Amino acid sequence: MSAFNPIEAIATKRDRQVLSGQQIRDFVAGVHDGSVADEQAAAFLMAVFLNGATETETIELTQAMIDSGQRQDLSAIVTEHGWRGLVDKHSTGGVGDKITLILTPLLASFGLAVPQLSGRGLGHTGGTLDKLEAIAGFQTRLSEKQYHEQLATVGGVICAAGSTLAPVDAKLYALRDVTGTVESIPLIAASIMSKKIAEGTDALMLDVKVGSGAFMKELNQATALAERMITIGTAAGVRTEALLTRMDIPLGLAIGNSLEVEESLQVLSGAGPQDVRDLTCALAQPLLEHYGIQHQAAENLDNGQAMKKFEELVAAQGGDLSQDRPLGKHRLEVTASASGTVKHIDALAVGQASWSLGAGRSRKEDPVQFGAGVQLLHQVGAEVSSGQPLAVLYTDTPERLEGASARLEKAFTIGEGPADPKPLILDHLTSGGAAR
Amino acid sequence: MSAFNPIEAIATKRDRQVLSGQQIRDFVAGVHDGSVADEQAAAFLMAVFLNGATETETIELTQAMIDSGQRQDLSAIVTEHGWRGLVDKHSTGGVGDKITLILTPLLASFGLAVPQLSGRGLGHTGGTLDKLEAIAGFQTRLSEKQYHEQLATVGGVICAAGSTLAPVDAKLYALRDVTGTVESIPLIAASIMSKKIAEGTDALMLDVKVGSGAFMKELNQATALAERMITIGTAAGVRTEALLTRMDIPLGLAIGNSLEVEESLQVLSGAGPQDVRDLTCALAQPLLEHYGIQHQAAENLDNGQAMKKFEELVAAQGGDLSQDRPLGKHRLEVTASASGTVKHIDALAVGQASWSLGAGRSRKEDPVQFGAGVQLLHQVGAEVSSGQPLAVLYTDTPERLEGASARLEKAFTIGEGPADPKPLILDHLTSGGAAR
Repeated sequence: MSAFNPIEAIATKRDRQVLSGQQIRDFVAGVHDGSVADEQAAAFLMAVFLNGATETETIELTQAMIDSGQRQDLSAIVTEHGWRGLVDKHSTGGVGDKITLILTPLLASFGLAVPQLSGRGLGHTGGTLDKLEAIAGFQTRLSEKQYHEQLATVGGVICAAGSTLAPVDAKLYALRDVTGTVESIPLIAASIMSKKIAEGTDALMLDVKVGSGAFMKELNQATALAERMITIGTAAGVRTEALLTRMDIPLGLAIGNSLEVEESLQVLSGAGPQDVRDLTCALAQPLLEHYGIQHQAAENLDNGQAMKKFEELVAAQGGDLSQDRPLGKHRLEVTASASGTVKHIDALAVGQASWSLGAGRSRKEDPVQFGAGVQLLHQVGAEVSSGQPLAVLYTDTPERLEGASARLEKAFTIGEGPADPKPLILDHLTSGGAAR
Repeated sequence: MSAFNPIEAIATKRDRQVLSGQQIRDFVAGVHDGSVADEQAAAFLMAVFLNGATETETIELTQAMIDSGQRQDLSAIVTEHGWRGLVDKHSTGGVGDKITLILTPLLASFGLAVPQLSGRGLGHTGGTLDKLEAIAGFQTRLSEKQYHEQLATVGGVICAAGSTLAPVDAKLYALRDVTGTVESIPLIAASIMSKKIAEGTDALMLDVKVGSGAFMKELNQATALAERMITIGTAAGVRTEALLTRMDIPLGLAIGNSLEVEESLQVLSGAGPQDVRDLTCALAQPLLEHYGIQHQAAENLDNGQAMKKFEELVAAQGGDLSQDRPLGKHRLEVTASASGTVKHIDALAVGQASWSLGAGRSRKEDPVQFGAGVQLLHQVGAEVSSGQPLAVLYTDTPERLEGASARLEKAFTIGEGPADPKPLILDHLTSGGAAR
């Protein structure tokens, strides 16, 4: 450590040279302990943003970030309690993405333990923890003991990550957030994978979203991110694969915390929008196959097993599903301005409308309105008549309705003839690199 | 100001877009008043380093840096006291570069006022203020009143810049220094020119050094830097031109503070090394011509006028030339290991040897030894015999002699046949862009 010079490490990346593992470890350790100054970390992040990082550098960066805390070992819990595997899912975030709420109990209902450490929403994409907190009494902050016990007994747990999980990531992310260096594939990949690997999962299914409502607007970017994350996971001994899924239109009909809980309950009852059900099953099926579970994922949605597991999970975390979720006191219908086919619903515009109604936050310390959001009444392909309701907006802040309504009207494209059918799942990448 | 978002400005430069003048003004003002965080400034500097800046952006950056303080107006002083013009010189720094000590009184002796605000040495290149402080009693920190009075009465003044001169430059430079973003042509150009323009000169002669002992190792880089500085100066109404001069070998025979004062006195007496005399005259001549002064610069070296002016300047600043300058108590001769022609003397190695003897500093708060340095006994082209002395090393820290001696021996290349004659002045650039 004594010979480490952060300026040399910055200059190495600046000059498009490859950093040694030791340089990366020293740099990350220095950011963590404060011996590398924030301005040095920022210059380094911008150099990585502009000059990229090799696979090996990204693997080493991820490992160094993991080593800023402790990698969990949950295998004893899994083995002792008869779970068939330890699996997790991560989505890069989209509009109406409530899959975690459904997938976690679904996988647990098939005998897989799911230590789902989740985040909160920021900007136009929602966060799993915010959604679950719309359920009365639901606790997202668990002690390590509670977390381990619930994983052992229920199999599924969805809670906030503790501070020992790749703690340097929070510092690096805060710096990226204020220095315009968020949208970097190696930095995103290292950030996500450091937390998922440290969490202790054995298998990881990634849902990398593509389109206007997603972080990655283009398929080639999303593919590059997915491939990089698979490389990192595989190097760390985590079986990692990825679906690339469309996020140019919202997922399902509900956008907003309480509304998405309701839609999740519908899907857990074997009903709900087909796209939400299909994506949940597509993410679950490879994990079931990997652990030799000879069932179709949809079976446990239809037979009530997944719902039963969800109720167990909610109860274990103090939640009470018998109480109604809050819903915005002020409502406004948005109606069709023309007759025809719904050709497109822009995910970003819908996400921003929901966010502006109070469902999301601008800054991470902001509160969210659980009852705010957008309930779409039609998906792409529906036939609508002029004046017919397209969506209902909910908020406790009525002065926000007008702006959100204007946003939402623009989100809909209504035209003649049928909508172009587009697949929900664009690609499936595995560590072999082959698409299925 | 309220709408300014530093992240957008960073992202603009990150994405190779052109910043607006307003963005640049807001960013620099934010760095100056602290509303732009150091990590944001650092990310911005790295983005400029890697993606460059247009001429217009660099002009606007320079102007914004000037506006962090006050641009001086010295024209009244010049006019009232009968000076024929207000001129200055800036060198990008090299080994043995004592030109300012000679050129300032030389120009003043021809009736030109020279408000020479200088710096200190850092690393292997020396600083004018350190050299002058080798003279007993010499004051480099003057009050504004003293500075103006001396400029009015003596015509020449060489002192430290006050804190009102482009003060944001110090903050930006400190950030560049720790983030590997020093070697950027637009950032160097804006840093140098912001101070020179703010200083209030009407005409500026730049000495852009090229070679191992200089900041710019290659002619094309040095040309680009010179052109950018000429563009900035011209845009600000300062008549700016540049000589590109070789710095692969040391300038003159003396390297180190006291030693360089002695050599300057020799040149001011009409003697001294030919290269030092030639470069001084080459930098002076275009300024004399511009102000219609029909003399050869060398005349006032030979007739004692420049020396007289130097004595006036030193006396005005409290210096006493009658006292000996300190010289290192410990000395070591370096001798030739072979007989032949001195083919090359590596400027960087000589500069590092002098620095290691105590003539320079590693950090800006370090003291310097005025008496430390290297007195070369031969220049390139000299015939030497094996065992003949090549140089004398001086220091007050004898344990440093051995390392410096090894460095210096390696600096010399001795071989057969004549040395390749290389010109001292590689190019002369003016605002018309044409080389003369």
